[in-house]
Amino acid sequence: MEFTPLDPGFEARVRASFARQRVMETIGAELIRVEPGAVEIALLARPELTQQHGFVHAGILATILDSACGYAAFSLMPADVAVLTVEYKINLLRPASGTRMVARARVVKPGQTLTVCTADAFAQTGSEEKLVATMLATIMAVPERDDLKQ
Amino acid sequence: MEFTPLDPGFEARVRASFARQRVMETIGAELIRVEPGAVEIALLARPELTQQHGFVHAGILATILDSACGYAAFSLMPADVAVLTVEYKINLLRPASGTRMVARARVVKPGQTLTVCTADAFAQTGSEEKLVATMLATIMAVPERDDLKQ
Amino acid sequence: MEFTPLDPGFEARVRASFARQRVMETIGAELIRVEPGAVEIALLARPELTQQHGFVHAGILATILDSACGYAAFSLMPADVAVLTVEYKINLLRPASGTRMVARARVVKPGQTLTVCTADAFAQTGSEEKLVATMLATIMAVPERDDLKQ
Amino acid sequence: MEFTPLDPGFEARVRASFARQRVMETIGAELIRVEPGAVEIALLARPELTQQHGFVHAGILATILDSACGYAAFSLMPADVAVLTVEYKINLLRPASGTRMVARARVVKPGQTLTVCTADAFAQTGSEEKLVATMLATIMAVPERDDLKQ
Repeated sequence: MEFTPLDPGFEARVRASFARQRVMETIGAELIRVEPGAVEIALLARPELTQQHGFVHAGILATILDSACGYAAFSLMPADVAVLTVEYKINLLRPASGTRMVARARVVKPGQTLTVCTADAFAQTGSEEKLVATMLATIMAVPERDDLKQ
Repeated sequence: MEFTPLDPGFEARVRASFARQRVMETIGAELIRVEPGAVEIALLARPELTQQHGFVHAGILATILDSACGYAAFSLMPADVAVLTVEYKINLLRPASGTRMVARARVVKPGQTLTVCTADAFAQTGSEEKLVATMLATIMAVPERDDLKQ
Repeated sequence: MEFTPLDPGFEARVRASFARQRVMETIGAELIRVEPGAVEIALLARPELTQQHGFVHAGILATILDSACGYAAFSLMPADVAVLTVEYKINLLRPASGTRMVARARVVKPGQTLTVCTADAFAQTGSEEKLVATMLATIMAVPERDDLKQ
Repeated sequence: MEFTPLDPGFEARVRASFARQRVMETIGAELIRVEPGAVEIALLARPELTQQHGFVHAGILATILDSACGYAAFSLMPADVAVLTVEYKINLLRPASGTRMVARARVVKPGQTLTVCTADAFAQTGSEEKLVATMLATIMAVPERDDLKQ
């Protein structure tokens, strides 16, 4: 599906917001693709991010999947709104073992208030990748208010 | 609801597994309560964990809620199994602003293979706390296999 | 939690809307309790509602759980809005065997636009009941528009 | 994705199980396609299935989406197991207005015990169709036991 962004400056707006998500720096996540209604975020699988079996923790996958969904939705929103995650569901499909994790989100249904997105997380090892998690998320546009500013 | 653990050493087993979750140290999370079918995990709200508006990122809340659910389920499992999160859904209810975040999980329905848990996340400021997120999760007991060991 | 309804005529409003849900008559569901932020719906477990093993189909449980969540949210909304289910997640916990199914919903977090509810479904046999399903739902208040009227 | 069914008689097995779901007859649902890992179920949008605004009730959409997911998973399972829905999440995307509703499910990740599926519901009017709901579901294979037989 092709989407036309309401704000031609959507990419800069997404990148600026991502840069303010300090947790992304903490976990080493990078915004690697921003298109209308589609966003990719990746991170290196470091030992500091693992659960008890040595795989990347589901919560870390959820963190990049959630942000990828939020920014995929945000890319289609007008310039004067803020974006919030209402809720999401994630299924963990395989152990998140690999050297790099990539979250790929896309908008399923844009809306003035609510936007529904899906995202998949892939674990990459060399040139191979496997699907390790999938998310279905509801994202909300809210008026940019002072109390939401840092 | 009161549960009787199958393994009298459940608390030590939960604490040992939690200690192997390196991501918990990375985000500064602590296991503060382990009872049969109920677990609490807390963390200080540091700037390193925030999203674009300065609140704790939903993915970080999800990380402690998910682990709390997993260990609430694990506390009722026999000693020779490993625990995996199958899936969860989270609703973000209010901005996660506060000085400390606490995730409280409890088992809704234990099972030989699948256990269903709920968990709530609270943002604390001084002696006050507010509910900021709620989770419904499906946790699985799997045979402790070599390929799940670190 | 105690809620104060914005509309003192909330119960009549909920009952009138329920009466327009023709599917409720089709499956034999009744609205048995309406309080501020809490609703119960029940139905008799007839063979016409079963899945392949003779239990009440998950979709029928979801139908009464979803409506119970929607009306629990609706009970707290102002008089001039319509209610829509945004999304929900349901966990099926035990076979829905029994003579009567009851869905009990309550509001977790009311909001001007979005309200989050939980609901449990119980299968009753004589004076006993068991928890068979649990739901976590997001409900939306929308302006009562012409295109939403029948 | 292409799947190879473990049981060459998968289609007959799916159709026989569907025929035992009495609720499908009650709501007028038909099994219109069975392929390895993919199933379609359709129904006519009758007034008896509507919610308060005259659209098909979300619970009815969920009923056919859930069964489509269950049978998509079941099509890949060995001949001697029964199938149960563990949980699902559904997002309602647009009003379910149209003359016919079609649920299309496919397996995302098959597994010995758990299979994850997605499904979309479309509302058809003449030759047009629109996406009205999407589901992400976890399905379980369980030993065919006597207490699950009707």
